[in-house]
Parts: sequence; structure tokens; C-alpha cells
Amino acid sequence: MEDSLAAAMRSAVALAEQVRGSTSPNPPVGCVVLDAAGLPVGEGATQPPGGAHAEVVALRAAGERARGGTAVVTLEPCAHHGRTPPCTDALIAAGVSKVVYAVADPNPVAAGGARTLQSGGIETQAGLLADEVSKGPLRAWLHAVKHGRPHVTWKYAASLDGRVAAADGSSRWVSSAVSRAEVHELRTRVDAIVVGTGTVRVDDPALTARAADGTPGARQPLRVVVGRSDLPEGARVLDDTAETLLVRTREPAEVLAALHARGVVDVLLEGGPTLAGAFVAAGLVDRVLVYLAPSLLGGGPVALGASGVSTITEAHRLAVEEVTMSGPDVRISAVPVRN
Amino acid sequence: MEDSLAAAMRSAVALAEQVRGSTSPNPPVGCVVLDAAGLPVGEGATQPPGGAHAEVVALRAAGERARGGTAVVTLEPCAHHGRTPPCTDALIAAGVSKVVYAVADPNPVAAGGARTLQSGGIETQAGLLADEVSKGPLRAWLHAVKHGRPHVTWKYAASLDGRVAAADGSSRWVSSAVSRAEVHELRTRVDAIVVGTGTVRVDDPALTARAADGTPGARQPLRVVVGRSDLPEGARVLDDTAETLLVRTREPAEVLAALHARGVVDVLLEGGPTLAGAFVAAGLVDRVLVYLAPSLLGGGPVALGASGVSTITEAHRLAVEEVTMSGPDVRISAVPVRN
Repeated sequence: MEDSLAAAMRSAVALAEQVRGSTSPNPPVGCVVLDAAGLPVGEGATQPPGGAHAEVVALRAAGERARGGTAVVTLEPCAHHGRTPPCTDALIAAGVSKVVYAVADPNPVAAGGARTLQSGGIETQAGLLADEVSKGPLRAWLHAVKHGRPHVTWKYAASLDGRVAAADGSSRWVSSAVSRAEVHELRTRVDAIVVGTGTVRVDDPALTARAADGTPGARQPLRVVVGRSDLPEGARVLDDTAETLLVRTREPAEVLAALHARGVVDVLLEGGPTLAGAFVAAGLVDRVLVYLAPSLLGGGPVALGASGVSTITEAHRLAVEEVTMSGPDVRISAVPVRN
Repeated sequence: MEDSLAAAMRSAVALAEQVRGSTSPNPPVGCVVLDAAGLPVGEGATQPPGGAHAEVVALRAAGERARGGTAVVTLEPCAHHGRTPPCTDALIAAGVSKVVYAVADPNPVAAGGARTLQSGGIETQAGLLADEVSKGPLRAWLHAVKHGRPHVTWKYAASLDGRVAAADGSSRWVSSAVSRAEVHELRTRVDAIVVGTGTVRVDDPALTARAADGTPGARQPLRVVVGRSDLPEGARVLDDTAETLLVRTREPAEVLAALHARGVVDVLLEGGPTLAGAFVAAGLVDRVLVYLAPSLLGGGPVALGASGVSTITEAHRLAVEEVTMSGPDVRISAVPVRN
């Protein structure tokens, strides 16, 4: 039974990953329903805001086979009336005898699901693959609930000697086709991409998620341009491929407050050295994702501008959480070490 | 028998690694002698110039037990009279019936060992673990024989954002204690460390191989300072911990020619951005070894200065050969991709 529960939770994690980026401000959750014999009979993931939660989708698929069975879900089921009725009601009505979840709901409004289930006569089990879920699909959402602001991943691509472009400003392509495809995939999984007006003026990026042939993906993140300067007419971020938000400040905390108010949970910061420096200096970068290309440039701009460090002991300390190859490039993910 | 040969060759590789840095201009070679039953009865590694070669050391240790046995050696035994008699004579005299070697000797003066052995009635086998040996202990020596100049490893430590020091020039310590210890170990394995006069003026490095408590190691590489400026009086490279060579040019090819003439095979380039840029521009860096610390500085000098690249398509292309963790740091080894 333990093995089928773990297998079901792994499926639930995969289901949650698939909807990451389409559920905010709700958490991307996955659910697998097992029948009384432990066989999977229904699966589901959180629908876009206003739509059904993962448990309800999975229970619908399972139908009568859910009775006496087990619901395996990545997040503690909600017990409150939001835009949808509480998932605890649906689980009790379906007659499941047990609910297994990975992570307890930290949201004071939604929490209490386990207790409600227990009152309804359902056994609950918490913590299965909790680490995998909290570092995986729920990472940004848990961060946003805890800190009251979106999770920020600062991403950049540089040569091995740390340049994001050559001396003449050319940067197509510092990193490999494999890494660029990975970044476009990553863009489909976040809520918003943030750059400064300077990047728009200099690079004129589209900031869309595209396939290798240039076709825009079905889901596009919000494009956010921050700063007081006006955008050039005809800038590509102003086209109708995706929504674009102009935030008339470069103060990172103000930018994140504006995005939080819009329900943005997961932010990809793709700005230039000045904007990145402001976010790092403000302690508002939660993850650094670097694609290092195996090349040497010896000139040109670097990734990070002034960020409040004047001497080595003031360096912003990180911890490497993962190093992998992305085609020929080295991909490093690191998180701040906070005291 | 195959297994005992491979095991013996692995031991021979380890023996060779131990003497790397102490044999130049001779190659660091390891040898294991097996008796007629395939049991190891003697091992040896190249002694410092003028001393015995690996085969002779191993045969001495084996004594009469070598008769009818097999000599397993990382490099084809030499057949010429240098400062020592030919190893082929020693192998024939010892009565071994077979010689297994990894890499053929590319040196036209020393080559022909296998043929000489065969004429002496000894069976030979070539190529066992050849890749491991040619990328391992013999890497620099094979390069020096092929190109007529030393092998150059450019090593630097930087923050994740590519800075080798903070804005005020402070750099102790960009990288971790683990990485620093590894670099001191690496220094004991090379023939020479090269820096420019600028680095001596600014950083006043000792350029010695030291233990964590500061004690100098028993073996010290040649310290090489290149450039036309005079060194400050009392510079630490002028102390008597190790030999120091001043080369009055910053032209990389001239520097390497001077070192080659002195029998230097393996060079560690630890210079600043200007000198590193000159070597990279000249195509005279054979390996880049980077220690990336998980920290962000956002200001301060970068590792590589002007190196002849003005636009992205001219970037010096590398291929990553190894990525490992060195304590908290990411260690990347990359080699140039040459057409």
C-alpha cells in the first residue's frame, strides 16, 4: 500500500507541474484517486482561476469507484468557500475513506482542511513527498503565501567569463539552442516576466514563450516593463501576442507589490544589470538561474550591476541547489543564504 | 588475466599522478610489474630528472620475480640513451615475457621501444586505458611534445556574476577554503605558475603551494613573473621559498618559448585580466579551470580582459569537459574547440 501511495503522489506531482503557471493566484495542485483496492481510478489538476480544484476533477473522473478509496493530493484540501465550494465537502460526499497529502496549507483562510475531513470520518495522512512538492510545483506559491509577495527567479545567460553580450552589444546567441528552448519552456510556467525599460530600448525583446520555429505558445506569461522612461513606439512587448503591464517605478518592492495585487505568484526577472542589481540589493531575488555558455568574450556588459556591495565581506551569499548541463551549457541554480 | 592487467594499469596511473610535477621535462610515468602468475611484485614511478625511470624502479623492486612476468606501464618504454640507459634494455635483461603500455611514445627520439622489445622476444600490447592516461598524468607532456611548448591551464576564481574581486579590490576570499586547498594541491603538480607584474604589484601573492596552516609544501613550482615593469622591493615572489623567473615580455608565445627552453611542460596561468586576455587572444590557453563561488558582487574586476573579440560570433568557443562541486563552489573545466 505504501508503494502505491508514493507512486500516486509522484503522479500528482507531475499533474501539478503540468498546470504550473496557469492557476495563480491559486496553487498548482495535483490529485490522484485510488479505489478501495489501491488502484488509480481518477486524476486531476487545478483548473484556471474560477475552475475546479484538483480534487474535484479527480473525483469526477473516479465517480463511484472513489467510495472507500483514497485521495492522494499534493496540498491539504481546502475547507473554505472561495470561488469554488470547499474540496473537503466534495471528498466527504464522494465517500473516500482516506486522504493523503504532501504539504499542509499555510494559508490561514484555506487551512483546517484535515480537521474538517477528520470530523467527517475520513482518515488523513500528511507529509508524503512533502520536500519534493514544496521545492517543486508549490515552491513559488508557498513563498508568496509566506512572504506576501511573488517568488522571484533572476535568470541570465552569460559566457564563462561572465559577459551577457560582446563588446559591440551583440548577444545572439550567448547560450545554446537547448538552453534557449529551456527558457521558453520556463516562461510558460511562470506568471510574469519582468524587464526594465532599458532592456526594451536596447534589445527590443518579445518576452513571449515560443517554440524553436518562433511560434508563440498557447499560454503566455504577463509581460512586465518597469521604469519611468517611455517605451519606443513599435516595441515588440507592445504587440498583441501577450498582455503587457507597465509599472512606472524601478523600486523592486513597489514592482512586486503591484504584481502581488494582480495575483502574480511566480516572477521571472530577465532584466539588465541595473534592474537585477536593484533586486539583489533589496534582497528580493529568491533564486538565481544561470546558463553559462562555454565561451570567452573578454569584453562587453556583465550580468549584475551595483547591488550594494563595496567590499568582499559584504558579498551576497548563495548556496548552489543544482548544477546540470543544458546542452553544451552549464546550468546553475542557487538560492540566497539568509541569516 | 585481463582484469589483473587493467587493475595494474590503474595502479600505474595512480603512481604516475603522484610524481606529476616532479619529472619535467621527462614524462610522469607509472609502472607495475606482475610475476608469471599475474600477481603484482613491484611498482615504480619516474624519478626526478637524472634519476631512474618508472620501469627500472619497478623492476628493481620485483627482482627475480619479474622473470616470465609482465610489465604494465603508462607510456611505451624508451629505447634511447638519454641521461639514463634505455628502459627496453632493463626489461629484456629482467626477462619479462610481456610489456603492456597505455600510450605510444610520440617523441621521435625515444620512440621505437615496442619494436626493440619485440626484437628482444618480448610480447607487447598497446592502448590499455590509453584515454585515461592521455587525459590524466600524460596530458601536459603529450601536449608539449606535440606542440613544442608547455600546456597552459588558465585558472581563476570568481563570484557567480563573474567578478574576481569586489569593487574595492578585496578578494580574500572569493572562493571557499576547499577550493583554495585544491588550488594549492594543483600548484604542487605543475612546473610553473605564471602571473604578470601587475598582479605582483596589486596582490603581492606568494605563488607557493601551501598547506591550510600556511606551511610551504616540500615541492614548489617555478614562479614566473612576466612583463617589463620592475617588481616592488620586498615582493613576496622574491623571497627564497621557491625559485622565481622574471621574463621581460608579456607576449605569450615568447613567455612559453622561454619556459619550454627551461624544460617546463605544465603551466598554471594565474594572471590578471590583461595577461589572461593576451593568452586567450593568442590561442595559448589549453584549459580553463574556473572556481565559481556562490556569491554575487555586482561590481569589481572581471577575470578576462580584451582578448580579440568584438562581436559575439568571434567568441572563443570552448567545450566543458568536467563540472564538479568543490565544497560550496562550482568547478568547471573547459577546453578550447579548435577547428
